[in-house]
Amino acid sequence: MNAPLTLADERRMANAIRALTMDAVQAANSGHPGMPMGMADVATVLFNRFITLDPSAPDWPNRDRFVLSAGHGSMLLYAINHLLGYDDMDIDQLRNFRQLGYRTAGHPEYGHAKGIEVTTGPLGQGLATAVGMALSERLGNARFGDLIDHFVYVIAGDGCLMEGVSHEAIDLAGHLGLGHLVVLWDDNRITIDGDTDLSTSTDQAARFAAAGWHVLKVDGHDAAEIAEALSAARRDPRPTFIACRTIIGFGAPNKQGGHDVHGAPLGAEEIAATRTALAWDHSPFDIPADVREAWRKIARRGAQARADWNKTLAASSRGAQFEALRRADPAPLAAAMADYKAKLAADRPKVATRKSSQMALEVVNAALPFTIGGSADLTGSNLTLTKGLAPVRPGDFSGRYVHYGIREFGMSAAMNGIALSGLFRPYGGTFLAFADYARPAIRLAALMGVPTVFVMTHDSIGLGEDGPTHQPVETLASLRAIPNLTVLRPCDAMETAEAWEIAMASTTTPVLLALSRQNLPALRTTAETANRSARGAYVLRDVEGVRDVTLIATGSEVEIAMKAADLLAGDGIRAAVVSAPSFELFGQQDRAYRTETLGTAPRVGVEAAIRMGWDAVLRPDDRFVGMTGFGASGPADRLYDHFGITDAKVADAARALL
Amino acid sequence: MNAPLTLADERRMANAIRALTMDAVQAANSGHPGMPMGMADVATVLFNRFITLDPSAPDWPNRDRFVLSAGHGSMLLYAINHLLGYDDMDIDQLRNFRQLGYRTAGHPEYGHAKGIEVTTGPLGQGLATAVGMALSERLGNARFGDLIDHFVYVIAGDGCLMEGVSHEAIDLAGHLGLGHLVVLWDDNRITIDGDTDLSTSTDQAARFAAAGWHVLKVDGHDAAEIAEALSAARRDPRPTFIACRTIIGFGAPNKQGGHDVHGAPLGAEEIAATRTALAWDHSPFDIPADVREAWRKIARRGAQARADWNKTLAASSRGAQFEALRRADPAPLAAAMADYKAKLAADRPKVATRKSSQMALEVVNAALPFTIGGSADLTGSNLTLTKGLAPVRPGDFSGRYVHYGIREFGMSAAMNGIALSGLFRPYGGTFLAFADYARPAIRLAALMGVPTVFVMTHDSIGLGEDGPTHQPVETLASLRAIPNLTVLRPCDAMETAEAWEIAMASTTTPVLLALSRQNLPALRTTAETANRSARGAYVLRDVEGVRDVTLIATGSEVEIAMKAADLLAGDGIRAAVVSAPSFELFGQQDRAYRTETLGTAPRVGVEAAIRMGWDAVLRPDDRFVGMTGFGASGPADRLYDHFGITDAKVADAARALL
Repeated sequence: MNAPLTLADERRMANAIRALTMDAVQAANSGHPGMPMGMADVATVLFNRFITLDPSAPDWPNRDRFVLSAGHGSMLLYAINHLLGYDDMDIDQLRNFRQLGYRTAGHPEYGHAKGIEVTTGPLGQGLATAVGMALSERLGNARFGDLIDHFVYVIAGDGCLMEGVSHEAIDLAGHLGLGHLVVLWDDNRITIDGDTDLSTSTDQAARFAAAGWHVLKVDGHDAAEIAEALSAARRDPRPTFIACRTIIGFGAPNKQGGHDVHGAPLGAEEIAATRTALAWDHSPFDIPADVREAWRKIARRGAQARADWNKTLAASSRGAQFEALRRADPAPLAAAMADYKAKLAADRPKVATRKSSQMALEVVNAALPFTIGGSADLTGSNLTLTKGLAPVRPGDFSGRYVHYGIREFGMSAAMNGIALSGLFRPYGGTFLAFADYARPAIRLAALMGVPTVFVMTHDSIGLGEDGPTHQPVETLASLRAIPNLTVLRPCDAMETAEAWEIAMASTTTPVLLALSRQNLPALRTTAETANRSARGAYVLRDVEGVRDVTLIATGSEVEIAMKAADLLAGDGIRAAVVSAPSFELFGQQDRAYRTETLGTAPRVGVEAAIRMGWDAVLRPDDRFVGMTGFGASGPADRLYDHFGITDAKVADAARALL
Repeated sequence: MNAPLTLADERRMANAIRALTMDAVQAANSGHPGMPMGMADVATVLFNRFITLDPSAPDWPNRDRFVLSAGHGSMLLYAINHLLGYDDMDIDQLRNFRQLGYRTAGHPEYGHAKGIEVTTGPLGQGLATAVGMALSERLGNARFGDLIDHFVYVIAGDGCLMEGVSHEAIDLAGHLGLGHLVVLWDDNRITIDGDTDLSTSTDQAARFAAAGWHVLKVDGHDAAEIAEALSAARRDPRPTFIACRTIIGFGAPNKQGGHDVHGAPLGAEEIAATRTALAWDHSPFDIPADVREAWRKIARRGAQARADWNKTLAASSRGAQFEALRRADPAPLAAAMADYKAKLAADRPKVATRKSSQMALEVVNAALPFTIGGSADLTGSNLTLTKGLAPVRPGDFSGRYVHYGIREFGMSAAMNGIALSGLFRPYGGTFLAFADYARPAIRLAALMGVPTVFVMTHDSIGLGEDGPTHQPVETLASLRAIPNLTVLRPCDAMETAEAWEIAMASTTTPVLLALSRQNLPALRTTAETANRSARGAYVLRDVEGVRDVTLIATGSEVEIAMKAADLLAGDGIRAAVVSAPSFELFGQQDRAYRTETLGTAPRVGVEAAIRMGWDAVLRPDDRFVGMTGFGASGPADRLYDHFGITDAKVADAARALL
């Protein structure tokens, strides 16, 4: 670390953030000046004295991570990244804050610009994602020593700490003792509606302490206090929470400290007054050379650190292993999967797809060292644990299995953080019905394009007695609605193996597996080289001659469709069966394949869920056998009968079309 | 309160719960014996010495509420309700636990049996819903004094306290000082995966204290300690958290204290051993007369309390007002709304539908005293506050507006609790994109059939600069997927007024309003008696002669469709425009109306969202102008251009069909 600048210098560095913020928000005529101006001093001390990163190599694996959980304060990040010299964040980007076609989106968007570690804005999730990053750091450190030894810094606001996911995040981080996680709370006591005492009385320091955190309080405008706290944070083995008492909109003489400064431009008059108050006599978007140089010095320090690290990597006996892990190459899976599929073809196991998922995972986890498994306290139900995967525990991060606790949202956000860290591929389980709890993180995975794998079992009324609260009915449709999410609902062990191949090969799309609780027969009984599920839908059972009807089904209902085809064959009706594990992948096939697969005959769709979304493969006059409302509590077979999802009903629906 | 029974009596009363639980789970061959057996002593003391309710009048407004937040322990509730003598919970129901057609569903389902105050199972939500009940209690007390003066008792497990929503719930309850809320934590240190120390280290007592709660710890098998704590809870002005240290599966000599007893039958051998250990020498489902009598005594005490309360009501000067509130009759709205609509027809305001929602709410809140408004810290954006609605504050519950804080899920669950309490009709706002955060509570409202009103503004890319994290794209589809939820997306001030009429008239269906950020012109410019939106979709602009094309749009895109129709008219193409504020309501109309409305001409659908769900009104060859992926950050009008949702593109799509 270089020698600290004087306080006066750091205030000027911070004022550069303030000026860029107020000018950019004014130019956009929209945005949030309050937080960046309030937290500018904290951020400046953090970057100036502590953070190590190299703007010329934004993907350097051992960089410190900076997560702006309070994403509405995006100008804080853009201003800093501009000042640090990221080559894609020139002043023109700041001048065009929040404009279409620029990198400076209203909230920081992962992938839009370098140095944005995670998309933030949906409150609390930056913090929860950072927990995954800090976990990944410890996992990496346990494997590679000082090749991975960095900090994860989070700026969080009142909103982040009010959101429920913050509880899941801090509980997990405190439990695991993620000592390289530091949360800086912008304690400005202002929310959109007014003072925070309109809606909260929680003692945040006591709350974090209760979760096992190291807790400190500072004046967020006192550089020495901030620096001392950050030093203490780095020394303490626990995650650290620093409450930074700040004045929102600091520097704006007439507006600071009030809720009007949170999310609206200051206006020309107040901006002029702020320039005077801050003694900042520079034009809009003009940064004096000495201040620019002070920020660039941080970047040079980081570049030197990366150069040193490169030497460490070159000298490391674990360097090759490290690089291999980072590549996340699924190729080693191919041979093992071929053997496994041959065995499946021979054995034809009748097992639930959650069980065949575990069987496939045995192969995956043995072949691919970069997977990190877990479950939201449903390990024995989701069947996400495989042989030899030791649990990740406080003080021992050598394992590969995380007991995420009863925290579906926190787990999913943490998995996104692990995926973003670039060393590991996370997968984690819960019941499909509780995808609703995790949904905001599933959406963010899709928006960011990170290949998190969501293992969702008990995927229909087939879960039986737990009843409608636990039975997905609309859940598949609601997940298929999310852009850039691949939903896979395999029908047997072979398709489940293929689903895991698809998941491990995915690089920019999260994958969600919907798996049955109940046993399902082997329907794919030959081992094939091609991954048929990768086409989304395919003819599982064809007819001789011309099709009379096409039955299309997914997951556990493919068995029903196959039996219905038998019934129809008894009547001399030629019914083809299309297995459709993924509507998204099918939609990506060319028209010729889609037309050939679906055929021109009347169609019957079968899924123990609502029809919405099925119009991807059904026409208005086709039939659908499925659910029209919520489920019920009872044994699974009774429920299938009760709701009319049976081979006989499918056959009836087919006959009605002929 | 009657004189306490001796300890020995209460242990026998509790053992009745244990025996019924283990026998019912065994008969079902599925279920969760661990929690009911572990918490039987706590529940017995609670009911025997404190709870006041009358099984013969389960809807008595001033009954104490008992919420089994750990819903998987449903047998605890069923056993108690059987023992108390609820007339729909005979022993046959318990013998058929978890069977189709019986009231004893796997998890307690509101409406399936008397004495089930809320559907539980999705963890944490029982607690969060109870916060709404406890808030409703204080609101009622502020208005009606001792007509509403009861307690809300919650049994919560480790899962409830790990879920993020628990944080939102306890933070809000602690802030508001909901002193009649008592949470009994089943501190058994066991989760499904194993010991709780696999995944949590939080000091729950310290955590609740940090949120402003009164905190106590007891031995959950010591009746005197439990009773003392409950007495202290009732005396303290704060909400109370009682950590009850229990042994999961208490009484099963070889299985208690382990995670195997959480969710599986004990087995015949262990059941026999448990009978011996508990000295319970009765046949399965057989309850000795003295134990039954002890439980019935509780019911008689409640019946007497209710009789006394009826006298109080009869004597109360506020009795009529109280009864009127409970009826929640929307009739007084009719005249005021007619006036308001006439004014709209005259003024033709060009305002955002979030603004016209506020305008309509001014009418609603003035006419209907039973509404309770609020927002998740977006009051100025959601425009949910109207004149004269004072905020609900700690110590002052006379207001009608709740600052729920940045807690979308907690707000929504609390609103469900308010609705379930039967005195008030809650509505609350957030951004539509954050329906994802609230989704588990929206689903539960739909499943329970409670008429909570969700006010969701900023309903498309029309929100502009905040960008894709804040822009709903798949959200409308995902909400329309939920059974028994009415989604309304009005196109102008008149439709918004109609939407509020629909919301206030709904009794068993939650209503979600999707409202624009951006201004929209008046398209319905005559005041009509009939509520046209109530039909879900209707012809807004008809053609002379035969239609060439039908343009169907919702919300902010109806304006675009109208302009497109103008463009087409310029080419001599006769385009009708159908406004479709609610697909659900349209789906409930008869076929003749639907056919007449949609017509037989080619159709173009327009919505700034994905196409999924539109096949309710579009055929495969029809066109759709909307979104295919996530949005972007920029001014709204630029985004509409960028994504091709314009009058010109709609007209092009129409021409392409002709």
